Amino acid sequence: MPVITIETGKLEKEQKVLLVERFTKTASEILKIPEQSFIVQLKENESDNIGVGGKLLTQVIAERNSK
Amino acid sequence: MPVITIETGKLEKEQKVLLVERFTKTASEILKIPEQSFIVQLKENESDNIGVGGKLLTQVIAERNSK
Amino acid sequence: MPVITIETGKLEKEQKVLLVERFTKTASEILKIPEQSFIVQLKENESDNIGVGGKLLTQVIAERNSK
Amino acid sequence: MPVITIETGKLEKEQKVLLVERFTKTASEILKIPEQSFIVQLKENESDNIGVGGKLLTQVIAERNSK
Amino acid sequence: MPVITIETGKLEKEQKVLLVERFTKTASEILKIPEQSFIVQLKENESDNIGVGGKLLTQVIAERNSK
Amino acid sequence: MPVITIETGKLEKEQKVLLVERFTKTASEILKIPEQSFIVQLKENESDNIGVGGKLLTQVIAERNSK
Repeated sequence: MPVITIETGKLEKEQKVLLVERFTKTASEILKIPEQSFIVQLKENESDNIGVGGKLLTQVIAERNSK
Repeated sequence: MPVITIETGKLEKEQKVLLVERFTKTASEILKIPEQSFIVQLKENESDNIGVGGKLLTQVIAERNSK
Repeated sequence: MPVITIETGKLEKEQKVLLVERFTKTASEILKIPEQSFIVQLKENESDNIGVGGKLLTQVIAERNSK
Repeated sequence: MPVITIETGKLEKEQKVLLVERFTKTASEILKIPEQSFIVQLKENESDNIGVGGKLLTQVIAERNSK
Repeated sequence: MPVITIETGKLEKEQKVLLVERFTKTASEILKIPEQSFIVQLKENESDNIGVGGKLLTQVIAERNSK
Repeated sequence: MPVITIETGKLEKEQKVLLVERFTKTASEILKIPEQSFIVQLKENESDNIGVGGKLLTQVIAERNSK
């Protein structure tokens, strides 16, 4: 039953495989629930659709790179 | 006020119409709240973005089809 | 895999049984996915924790009852 | 830590900047938590993927415009 | 239709009223959608149920207060 | 920015510490994002509020234990 969701930026296929595999393994060990019961949802977001500290992530990244 | 959300795979337009219609009707009957108050959110996910039992759904489907 | 979530007010046990049963049956028929694959999450919220039209639901209900 | 999410329709870039800025400022003032701690998630949905009162939002808008 | 959700710590009633009022007003102005269409969900979380930077918020607060 | 959420049953404090620690560490390694940027939300649900395969989890557990 447990449902694990990660809200993040764009992901590579390999990262998707690893996140699903390791989140499931980790949670299964800690919760003593078989891996088969777990669902993982990977939510990819554009940088323009995420705000951090009151600014778009796009802007935060641009400012960081211009330093 | 009630908000119903379904996280699932790709949907046909006809499925969207039916899901919204029937979820709303069902919940309205059970909760005795007018249909007008209900919001339904249909969240379509790529098979690569869903994990089941520690594997990407894409992989699970491929393995099932190769049996 | 599909995960259905309803955000609503306080629920009776009987309503929980019916919501889970009928949401699962409805979605299974429309999506042609076996019932066994479905997860339903029932999220109960206090009226003070829901806003409708800019007011707490508690206030909206009180105003409706005072008419 | 607070995470603010809005589920809505398509957004212009300018609307994204304003939503992130003002949600963060408003919540920071009310909760007395520094703006730096806030995350905002902007979730854009197609009108076919939202149901209001048992109908797709697309249909609701079409009916409204045809009056 | 828009649904605004904030995941945060424990809230005072007054904070709930203000968050619902101002989030709705702000979003209504920016999105040009009537306030009546908005739903706000206030999700209160225990400090033990939130992780920041790999630690429980309870621990982060304790460490901050011990400085 | 990444926000990781797990919807599960009741948790012990020790499980909360481990879930936050290991989810953050795992995601940080895979996404090459500093641990400090991660938020984890632990959502505990009553067994009566979760449906699996069309039945309340409470009922599923009872049936499993009666075998």
